[in-house]
Amino acid sequence: MSPTLQDIQHAAQRIQSYAHRTPVLTNQSLDQRVDARVYLKCENLQKVGAFKFRGACNAVYSLSDEESKHGVCTHSSGNHAQALALAARMRGIPAYIVMPDNAPQVKKDAVAGYGGRITFCEPTLEARESTMERIRLDTGATVVHPYDDERVIAGQGTAALELLDSIPDLDAIIAPVGGGGLLSGTSIAAKGLKPNIRIIAAEPEMADDAYRSMKEGRIIPSVNPKTIADGLLTSLGTLTFPIIQQNVEQIVTVSERGIIEAMKFVWERAKIIIEPSAAVAVGVLWERKIDLSGLKVGVILSGGNVALNKLPWQS
Amino acid sequence: MSPTLQDIQHAAQRIQSYAHRTPVLTNQSLDQRVDARVYLKCENLQKVGAFKFRGACNAVYSLSDEESKHGVCTHSSGNHAQALALAARMRGIPAYIVMPDNAPQVKKDAVAGYGGRITFCEPTLEARESTMERIRLDTGATVVHPYDDERVIAGQGTAALELLDSIPDLDAIIAPVGGGGLLSGTSIAAKGLKPNIRIIAAEPEMADDAYRSMKEGRIIPSVNPKTIADGLLTSLGTLTFPIIQQNVEQIVTVSERGIIEAMKFVWERAKIIIEPSAAVAVGVLWERKIDLSGLKVGVILSGGNVALNKLPWQS
Repeated sequence: MSPTLQDIQHAAQRIQSYAHRTPVLTNQSLDQRVDARVYLKCENLQKVGAFKFRGACNAVYSLSDEESKHGVCTHSSGNHAQALALAARMRGIPAYIVMPDNAPQVKKDAVAGYGGRITFCEPTLEARESTMERIRLDTGATVVHPYDDERVIAGQGTAALELLDSIPDLDAIIAPVGGGGLLSGTSIAAKGLKPNIRIIAAEPEMADDAYRSMKEGRIIPSVNPKTIADGLLTSLGTLTFPIIQQNVEQIVTVSERGIIEAMKFVWERAKIIIEPSAAVAVGVLWERKIDLSGLKVGVILSGGNVALNKLPWQS
Repeated sequence: MSPTLQDIQHAAQRIQSYAHRTPVLTNQSLDQRVDARVYLKCENLQKVGAFKFRGACNAVYSLSDEESKHGVCTHSSGNHAQALALAARMRGIPAYIVMPDNAPQVKKDAVAGYGGRITFCEPTLEARESTMERIRLDTGATVVHPYDDERVIAGQGTAALELLDSIPDLDAIIAPVGGGGLLSGTSIAAKGLKPNIRIIAAEPEMADDAYRSMKEGRIIPSVNPKTIADGLLTSLGTLTFPIIQQNVEQIVTVSERGIIEAMKFVWERAKIIIEPSAAVAVGVLWERKIDLSGLKVGVILSGGNVALNKLPWQS
């Protein structure tokens, strides 16, 4: 069932002692460059460096004491795995994380660093799902899907709640879309508080399955997309898609070049580290594909997890 | 004359509509690594990317209307020049900036971008001072020294005021020291509010003139120091030195390696961009040269202006 504004408000209470209330930053150079008044909601400064902690934390703390004893499990090689591992450690319960054996070492280390119990499997969706199912049966752990889960969606929506609490008169909010957890939660929170606010989704041109899904009115799976925005490779879920259909005005696609330019500009001028997936949301303004001139626009910077040894603008 | 706590409180009122109230961030990984509870006061997120905007802004807005008409001037190739240019533009008055003709193009562009009127001169202190004196006589502009100026010192102290307003029970504050404007302002604000708070200065080993000055009880000029922390090359001033002597517990020097390691750690974990000079303050904790274990320590991250094309940890 689709979460409500009230679910998101409950989630905000549930996670408030565990998650950061992230700052909202403004930057005059950015405003001038994109001709809008931009409010950056810095989920890159969230725990584990991504908004994902909100949803994972809400899921973990929604469990009854009895359920929680058996722990949580998921398959993920990204920020969700780290987020779930950390939230579980905070509650003192096990997190079983299924990762493909070819995941980058830095991601394996991060999950292990947060106390996640990793099981490696072959890098196919079938192997990931069957491995997780086996763990679930063995342990009784609760599966926490990275986005197609109402507790997760409600948790992700808390960022927009805070953003509108800080800046109540926003005209629009831009959020990136991969599986749609952040976007759907954002849209429920924002439309619930301000029915006329415009919700814009940002997607890489090179992974435009959400754009095509909206156009065709059914979920079009992404097929092996290649984009620098590696947090946005997944397809929409059966829970997130109808929420997005109902609440989101438009899905705007951003070129790879626009993603990198916007990312570098934010690093240089706002002095914060954002990952390419977060830069996609800034890229909507950067490439001026829709007219938001003069408006107050909130941008959810989804995360800041990026390898610092080689940057995208370095040849 | 040395500014007082009250001067700093007035400065805070004076600049509050122009400067950002920067966030204070915490990071569990950093706390674990250095065994302290660290509160990062993010002046890297200040306008022009550095605390320097506070002092420049206070100086510019301290001028009478009559004085202000003639503008302000300084010689600087660093953050102070940008800060003064922006503050002057906000007030609608000219800023005359003397820069050595061999200053990096990016710094020239930045000052010009903020509307500063640049006069180039030969890269010697004599040429800089004589060029500025000529401009002062020609225009009647008020000289705003980068640190040895009580209005500037009072402005820089406002960061510590905000930090202690957010986290009143700090045990210590660490600030980097170059000319001593930030350190002296910080120490007046913090000691004024909390006489028992410990003020620690952070300096590169390779530019340890403040450390030696404190030891010998007189200002030892720095002689052509070479450190990656290029914001900390200057010597203490006649106004800043006695304030520092009175208020600062200890000047701790940090190795070049410690500076780079601390800088990379903050980028990776806290997801913010800090310049090497700011990393020196983190480096005090990183290298554990003094025992601050278990304490609540505020760290003033002085700035975030760093070229993104090649990073110090890239070979």
